[in-house]
Amino acid sequence: MAEKYDIVIVGAGPVGLMFSACLLRLGPYKIKHIDNRAEPTATGRADGIQARTLDVLQNMGLKRSIMSYNPGRVYEVAFWNASDENGIRRTGNSKSYPDYIDTRYPFSTIIHQGRIEKILLDDLGHRGVEVQRPWTIAGFREDSRDPTDPLEVDLVSVDGNKRSRLRTKYIFGADGPRSVVRQMLNIPMVSKDPTVHVWCVIDGVVKSDFPDIQIKCAIHSSTGSAMIIPHGNNRVRIYLQIFPKPGEQPLEFATLAKTQQVANVIFSPYKVEWESVEWHSAYRIGQAIASSYTLDQRVFIGGDACHTHSPKAGQGMNYGFLDAHNLAWKLHLVETGFMKGSLLGTYEDERKLAAAKLVEFDARYANLFSSRQSSNREGQNSEFVQVFKENSLLTSGYGVSYPPSPLTRASRTASGPLRTGHSFPTATVTRVVDAHVAYLEQEIPFNGSYRIYIFAGNRATTSQAINHLTVHLQLRGSIFRRYQRKEVDLSYEKRHNPHSDFFTFLVIFHAQRSSVDIHECLPDFLACYKYHIYADDYQGPDKKQATAHIKMGFDIENGGVVVVRPDGYVGLVMDLVDGRRTAEALDGYFAPIVPEQANIPALATL
Amino acid sequence: MAEKYDIVIVGAGPVGLMFSACLLRLGPYKIKHIDNRAEPTATGRADGIQARTLDVLQNMGLKRSIMSYNPGRVYEVAFWNASDENGIRRTGNSKSYPDYIDTRYPFSTIIHQGRIEKILLDDLGHRGVEVQRPWTIAGFREDSRDPTDPLEVDLVSVDGNKRSRLRTKYIFGADGPRSVVRQMLNIPMVSKDPTVHVWCVIDGVVKSDFPDIQIKCAIHSSTGSAMIIPHGNNRVRIYLQIFPKPGEQPLEFATLAKTQQVANVIFSPYKVEWESVEWHSAYRIGQAIASSYTLDQRVFIGGDACHTHSPKAGQGMNYGFLDAHNLAWKLHLVETGFMKGSLLGTYEDERKLAAAKLVEFDARYANLFSSRQSSNREGQNSEFVQVFKENSLLTSGYGVSYPPSPLTRASRTASGPLRTGHSFPTATVTRVVDAHVAYLEQEIPFNGSYRIYIFAGNRATTSQAINHLTVHLQLRGSIFRRYQRKEVDLSYEKRHNPHSDFFTFLVIFHAQRSSVDIHECLPDFLACYKYHIYADDYQGPDKKQATAHIKMGFDIENGGVVVVRPDGYVGLVMDLVDGRRTAEALDGYFAPIVPEQANIPALATL
Repeated sequence: MAEKYDIVIVGAGPVGLMFSACLLRLGPYKIKHIDNRAEPTATGRADGIQARTLDVLQNMGLKRSIMSYNPGRVYEVAFWNASDENGIRRTGNSKSYPDYIDTRYPFSTIIHQGRIEKILLDDLGHRGVEVQRPWTIAGFREDSRDPTDPLEVDLVSVDGNKRSRLRTKYIFGADGPRSVVRQMLNIPMVSKDPTVHVWCVIDGVVKSDFPDIQIKCAIHSSTGSAMIIPHGNNRVRIYLQIFPKPGEQPLEFATLAKTQQVANVIFSPYKVEWESVEWHSAYRIGQAIASSYTLDQRVFIGGDACHTHSPKAGQGMNYGFLDAHNLAWKLHLVETGFMKGSLLGTYEDERKLAAAKLVEFDARYANLFSSRQSSNREGQNSEFVQVFKENSLLTSGYGVSYPPSPLTRASRTASGPLRTGHSFPTATVTRVVDAHVAYLEQEIPFNGSYRIYIFAGNRATTSQAINHLTVHLQLRGSIFRRYQRKEVDLSYEKRHNPHSDFFTFLVIFHAQRSSVDIHECLPDFLACYKYHIYADDYQGPDKKQATAHIKMGFDIENGGVVVVRPDGYVGLVMDLVDGRRTAEALDGYFAPIVPEQANIPALATL
Repeated sequence: MAEKYDIVIVGAGPVGLMFSACLLRLGPYKIKHIDNRAEPTATGRADGIQARTLDVLQNMGLKRSIMSYNPGRVYEVAFWNASDENGIRRTGNSKSYPDYIDTRYPFSTIIHQGRIEKILLDDLGHRGVEVQRPWTIAGFREDSRDPTDPLEVDLVSVDGNKRSRLRTKYIFGADGPRSVVRQMLNIPMVSKDPTVHVWCVIDGVVKSDFPDIQIKCAIHSSTGSAMIIPHGNNRVRIYLQIFPKPGEQPLEFATLAKTQQVANVIFSPYKVEWESVEWHSAYRIGQAIASSYTLDQRVFIGGDACHTHSPKAGQGMNYGFLDAHNLAWKLHLVETGFMKGSLLGTYEDERKLAAAKLVEFDARYANLFSSRQSSNREGQNSEFVQVFKENSLLTSGYGVSYPPSPLTRASRTASGPLRTGHSFPTATVTRVVDAHVAYLEQEIPFNGSYRIYIFAGNRATTSQAINHLTVHLQLRGSIFRRYQRKEVDLSYEKRHNPHSDFFTFLVIFHAQRSSVDIHECLPDFLACYKYHIYADDYQGPDKKQATAHIKMGFDIENGGVVVVRPDGYVGLVMDLVDGRRTAEALDGYFAPIVPEQANIPALATL
């Protein structure tokens, strides 16, 4: 009998590791994780974590490990251009993320791929998953011999000496731009722009009189383009565009010595001297997207296997991480009986759309970056700067939104930052039970639960609506009732999920914390969530009360309700009203998501 | 020949460990560290880190280790009193630290002593110091046989089987309220209040319907007093006052079962059920201060060896930490030739005064806490609440200030938060070189350097004053010149100290960051501090510019200069003016501190 796994993950770069890390937070999944490299990445390669990605990593409990490396932080970008006189000069500056971007982290975090892989590998190790390497996938087929684990997979060690056959429910290919899994699925890459640029990159320690050496810079000199990424602790990355002859291998052309020489010409009149070099590479890059992200909702691909683009906007690892994050909770909810299998199609719908926007921006940005003729005089790259600024919402990650679907229902006219399909806005409130300052968007860890935020406004006004809501949620036939445990679990361990692992309720009163007595203010059903009752009374450093209600576009009297998906994206926004309408709207959101009752597997009663 | 050490530290509780951790950040000190316990504290005992202490630990790079435990955070205190009807009821609330307290951390951090000791022991281990245990000090004497290491010390293992003799420069006794070192010095404890209270304490996990079980509470019921300290992660500490007969041992009287029973009576009508108990103790406590903190500036005591008081205000470990921190940099500067040995006397002057204020407050607070007659009706403990609130500046740690001395010179009329003898206020600015948001008070780690902040106002206005200042600092005869290296060290490693390990200059312009070109704006002497040039252009979440200049009480045109001691306390505040006056004022500050030139030992040229 072949050994059985819940999933086979091919590739242990950041995206594959992220997918394992996500799944292991959702359930005790049995994972076979392989990589065709003998060792993890030591250094170099991907290096940028954008703000929305840091949110997601924080929600998974991984931000502290990242910050312990004291990574680089990019708060600003400087633009340098050819001047008439003597080499380059600074022509402008821009914040990485302008003020209108709603984030706790107004900077890009810079940490090389070696450290990212180490953080994720350590996390997996603590959870009992080791990556098997150097192994690759030799083939797979779907058959009906075992309906629970319909896939038969053949693995082989890279030296060809060892083979194993196993059965699994799913395969996830996170095996990079030349993905073997994608090739096995015969999924073509669709190129978006025929232009291919060649870039080389050096990581290390420089001694330089260039004043912005610790700031992200986009440099257009009369001899070529360059980019600086500060890595923190005196380390920098420098990208340089190079021009090998057709057919010449980038790395053959761009030796380290040649690269360093090119840099000094571009940076003139400044000098760049390398005290040490940690990593050096060169490659051609184009923009392309896989025509499909899956076969039969059983075999999926994600990350660079699905989309390739230039590294200039620092997006690759970020889009890959969010691919993995997006698919993991959906797979989990399907496996535990809370979601119809057909909704796995939203993985491709959502992430391919996001990738398409990225690739479109990147093609434009990369062309402008490389265009020497348009930028050899200062001020003439205003189009470049404009494209950079216009896209900062996209590059921060907060500009990615998902189209209408059963998971994101445009239920209310958008106004303000709370919009279905977008990530839930940041909001700071006070937790009632312990008076802690709480970041509302981070209060529920990535655990597969839907997060139902009840902005309860003024208690005197909304108490009837809240009572009606809970009464109707408890009625026979309600989807909430269907997925509830037989007994409420009031233990600390289940504080997010006393009724069910599929949903958490959070209640935010527009009131002073000390005036909220949980048991007086709430029916028992909601009082169970005692760690998730909040007062919207937080005053920031400016001692001005910034109410979460108003930020969300809710009335401070009447409140409103928000359904947030387990990945932090808003699924539904609705009013909080007397009678059965609010409960019906909630039920109406979940009805097209959950399977017919008959299909709920045993796990759902967990 | 007896082995030689720079210092012998007796006691490896938090205070002794802190002292080692401080010294090892200042130089390669050879430390003999002993403790008479076979094992470190496992759990329980001290549990509160106040905001100013967290500042200090952050400045030593230890805050992240503390936060990795996800400790409790006390943002609020609730007051509960006997009601006429049926047991206790809440009569009020207060923030732990009111808004007027200038801190990055508006909460007390709660983490038990076992974890604190582990964090510090790990830190020492990484720096090559292991605690020798169970060993104690058998005796010491000062003689003239070795003028460099004038102390001969005898150590003995606690079982009496092993002995060793060594020579050292200093001894630090951090061996608790029954300090052996203090007894050897014949230093008496002076009692401040004859009242002795007996309290018991339980740490663990409770199941309770008491609504404020996760908030710090001061409870006065008609049957006794209690206090709750939330430890985070569902754990709490409960203190209870008990009344053993005279002569009866507290722990014999207050068995765990008895304590739990007393708690349930005090908390009535609420129930407190213990799911698990981690630690339980009972003890008598009075208020006393050692009449002296040192003998001959060679043997010092600190922490509980110097001051005892009730644990109610959560201060013991904090005052002990700051004792150790205060002494460590002074010893270091004496040993490296930057400070006269006689200034070690300021350790006792400063810390004994601080302890006296604490003990005075604590005696009053503890008596009010225990006074059953004055609090058996609700509202009647308003004096208690008033004393609590009045002293929140003191209990936050920011209320501790040091008296005038050569180290803290009242050079300018105080207005606003910048005052000599107080800790340097928080201020957020933008670092020029990398556009990072910088916390000015944290920019220089605890490394023994004086921090000289030049608030440079408007560059056009102050450029002449700054040029004059640096010219005069470089003149033969200037104290700065005397302590400078032969060659400026521009390496990244010496970025805080290019000229000397004894001082760092920081320059803050009132300007937009991108308008500051370091080499254009500053003479070479100050441009060396390229990581410490800032723009006072930071805008907070409210997008309102809160200038550091104005917070410090400086004019945004003319600026001013602040000398901050290596422990973060303000030593001198002065104007920034043309001519030699500013340089003379700086020199005039250091002149009474540094030894006569002839006495500088070899280390000073480091």
